[in-house]
Amino acid sequence: MSERIRVTVWNEYLHELEDPSIGSIYPQGIHGALGEFLGKEADIEVRYATLRQEEHGLTEDVLRQTDVLIWWGHKAHDQVEDTVAERVHQRVLEGMGLIVLHSAHFSKIFRKLMGTTCSLRWREAGEKERVWVIEQGHPIAEGLDHYFEIPQTEMYGERFDIPEPDTLVFISWYAGGEVFRSGCCYNRGRGKVFYFAPGHETHPIYYQKEVQQVIKNAVRWAAPILSLSKPLSGDWVAPLEPLD
Amino acid sequence: MSERIRVTVWNEYLHELEDPSIGSIYPQGIHGALGEFLGKEADIEVRYATLRQEEHGLTEDVLRQTDVLIWWGHKAHDQVEDTVAERVHQRVLEGMGLIVLHSAHFSKIFRKLMGTTCSLRWREAGEKERVWVIEQGHPIAEGLDHYFEIPQTEMYGERFDIPEPDTLVFISWYAGGEVFRSGCCYNRGRGKVFYFAPGHETHPIYYQKEVQQVIKNAVRWAAPILSLSKPLSGDWVAPLEPLD
Amino acid sequence: MSERIRVTVWNEYLHELEDPSIGSIYPQGIHGALGEFLGKEADIEVRYATLRQEEHGLTEDVLRQTDVLIWWGHKAHDQVEDTVAERVHQRVLEGMGLIVLHSAHFSKIFRKLMGTTCSLRWREAGEKERVWVIEQGHPIAEGLDHYFEIPQTEMYGERFDIPEPDTLVFISWYAGGEVFRSGCCYNRGRGKVFYFAPGHETHPIYYQKEVQQVIKNAVRWAAPILSLSKPLSGDWVAPLEPLD
Amino acid sequence: MSERIRVTVWNEYLHELEDPSIGSIYPQGIHGALGEFLGKEADIEVRYATLRQEEHGLTEDVLRQTDVLIWWGHKAHDQVEDTVAERVHQRVLEGMGLIVLHSAHFSKIFRKLMGTTCSLRWREAGEKERVWVIEQGHPIAEGLDHYFEIPQTEMYGERFDIPEPDTLVFISWYAGGEVFRSGCCYNRGRGKVFYFAPGHETHPIYYQKEVQQVIKNAVRWAAPILSLSKPLSGDWVAPLEPLD
Repeated sequence: MSERIRVTVWNEYLHELEDPSIGSIYPQGIHGALGEFLGKEADIEVRYATLRQEEHGLTEDVLRQTDVLIWWGHKAHDQVEDTVAERVHQRVLEGMGLIVLHSAHFSKIFRKLMGTTCSLRWREAGEKERVWVIEQGHPIAEGLDHYFEIPQTEMYGERFDIPEPDTLVFISWYAGGEVFRSGCCYNRGRGKVFYFAPGHETHPIYYQKEVQQVIKNAVRWAAPILSLSKPLSGDWVAPLEPLD
Repeated sequence: MSERIRVTVWNEYLHELEDPSIGSIYPQGIHGALGEFLGKEADIEVRYATLRQEEHGLTEDVLRQTDVLIWWGHKAHDQVEDTVAERVHQRVLEGMGLIVLHSAHFSKIFRKLMGTTCSLRWREAGEKERVWVIEQGHPIAEGLDHYFEIPQTEMYGERFDIPEPDTLVFISWYAGGEVFRSGCCYNRGRGKVFYFAPGHETHPIYYQKEVQQVIKNAVRWAAPILSLSKPLSGDWVAPLEPLD
Repeated sequence: MSERIRVTVWNEYLHELEDPSIGSIYPQGIHGALGEFLGKEADIEVRYATLRQEEHGLTEDVLRQTDVLIWWGHKAHDQVEDTVAERVHQRVLEGMGLIVLHSAHFSKIFRKLMGTTCSLRWREAGEKERVWVIEQGHPIAEGLDHYFEIPQTEMYGERFDIPEPDTLVFISWYAGGEVFRSGCCYNRGRGKVFYFAPGHETHPIYYQKEVQQVIKNAVRWAAPILSLSKPLSGDWVAPLEPLD
Repeated sequence: MSERIRVTVWNEYLHELEDPSIGSIYPQGIHGALGEFLGKEADIEVRYATLRQEEHGLTEDVLRQTDVLIWWGHKAHDQVEDTVAERVHQRVLEGMGLIVLHSAHFSKIFRKLMGTTCSLRWREAGEKERVWVIEQGHPIAEGLDHYFEIPQTEMYGERFDIPEPDTLVFISWYAGGEVFRSGCCYNRGRGKVFYFAPGHETHPIYYQKEVQQVIKNAVRWAAPILSLSKPLSGDWVAPLEPLD
């Protein structure tokens, strides 16, 4: 890890280009909106990568210089090449943080890390979501009150087919009758993974200050510990290491 | 454990005697209503104990013959003698199952086992609760569908000040805007503890078939393993045991 | 689930045929040794499947009639066809229990379910292992004492690259200086997964009574709940289900 | 939280005064040894408190100015007044970090937070302990290698009667045949609790650099999040809060 946390924001970046109503909400793309508020933080530096770039912008070199990767995808999960998903997976297990947003629950990388279908219920009705803070002392809850509301959102509901989170930080309430584990922390290998549900592309959710607060908190929580920048002695995946 | 699971249903048994409207819902007391459906199960036998009995009905002898204790209390938690709470605590750590219902979140025994305040939000508005099944393969979810509803209930909401459950089986949704971890499993010592939120005394909740199903499932889940009926070799709390 | 738990024991079944010294320990194959003691239990019925059979013996039909699958593999993980691994994965998420033994930590199915490399340290030195019971009230610890010993075994040591278990039942001590999380429970989808470390092919470990006890306990723990034999209402992986 | 993390090191401080051989290892007391290396960190400030001080040095005022409390006790747990243990408990639930060292597993405050007996096995034989890092990406593992060794220590062994840790960071191996969950993280209320096993008073363990590294890491991990310095809106333990 350099002195600043090196964040790469990855976005599928299709909705914004193809649908003018979405493009008008996120004229710089969802990645641009995410990067804008992150880049204002003194301890964070931001770069971008998108699906249509070569290797989806996630070359070995880019990943090696990434402390925390943020992932937004929705309609083109299957267009992400397996080799790139595999590369990201490997890098998370080595220590890179990963923040998986909204519809990226169905991304190759999240499903590979979870080992389950990651399916859920959903409904597009522009209904109200109330995000309750379950672990009030957790770093990702920094600066939040008991709950915050998203005025209009897509519903995501249980049963969310994920492994039980290592720490469950948020549970969401939806006006239509569902609940959802909307903020989930996982340790996987040496990496930290945070799934955060809000962020449907047809609503300006990433401009909301509490949502931005959560993502900034999550970047700091997911950043690798310093000693991961130098390898541990020996090869941690070595199958054989006789000890005295 | 005998061949049948020996359940003791403990009830404060004050509301039903003091408030005719509650007494008319539970003419045999809440314990009577719980015991009635449990007693119909071939593998379960039931006895009762209440606050006003000597030692609250929970003598050493009764506890020694109890595999699973069910606890309902509300307005008189502080009238439970510390020695009895201590005795129950000790017995849970030795292996007795404990099912804590509704307002017993504030009972001495539950707070002692959790180590936290066990506080929560609440509101009496007779609103709808929808109980979502989060772990669909868990024994306590046996026979349930994706969710079930309680038409009128007292709201219990987060932040529920408990340790993160070892397994979170249910999350409830309330019409007024809250969520609640309403089915929580804990291993404590050699015992199993299940907290289940439904059961306000002013609504006939323990007559609902899904609620009964959950409590029957929980009894079977919480029953001690057979080997606990004979002590392990050595004294498990012995501070000193030199090994070869 | 039928009245008896239908167990399918899957074995790679190569070591026993190719190496006479191993063949003499397990003349009926490791699967035969496992099936023999399991088959004596009144509530368990056993069938077998091996790598060299068509579809590795794990057709759709066989899996549909399997409540709990036991998996032993070592040198030919990559010979298991992806379609079969995928089929087993799907079935676990639907509710089938899975018991993963020893070197099967590197099997396709276990790695797919865990989402991590599942790598570990190892050393073949025929050293002593002491298996400590961490959760003494857990069904898989039924009938065990504080610990049991395996006189000669292959060492498996941390860092074991797995997600933190939902419940950690055993930790092993090895004479050479390592520790290992040797009994790990996971809920995945609607299925239950248990990893159990003992079982190197060059030692007669599956004839040891405590090891057999653990595997019998694990079969009963991992068996699906009854309601999984009929589908829940609606399709649980359906992405869209508007609720009233 | 002020800009620096305000650490209070609490020590029973009896062994060092009463036993010259222990006093010669820790001439400034165990608290002095702990405070010395902590105080060298730019982001940490240290104060001390001991058993024989008025209110054991833990007045309301001291606790209000403490971000992280470190606790070492052994032979006089029962001399800690209940009101002080209660006060510390309350403050942890409000957000203060707590680091519980070695024999303080039996302290009033740790047992109250855990809800179990916190008993364990032990043996004084000056044997070797090897502390294995189980979660290699965890902040408390910062700067460590796969394991570190303590040349001579008191053995602490399972079954350690604690709730399953929210995160298990270390497992220790002892030459005599035991294992121990020696680094355990808990969220309790809004506070973070870390139990760390090393530190017997008859060995100079707190001078070892890896042990110091762990304690420094733990202080930073356990420090409250900033927003806890101002109260959340409303009273989090308020039983009634009707929402719109």
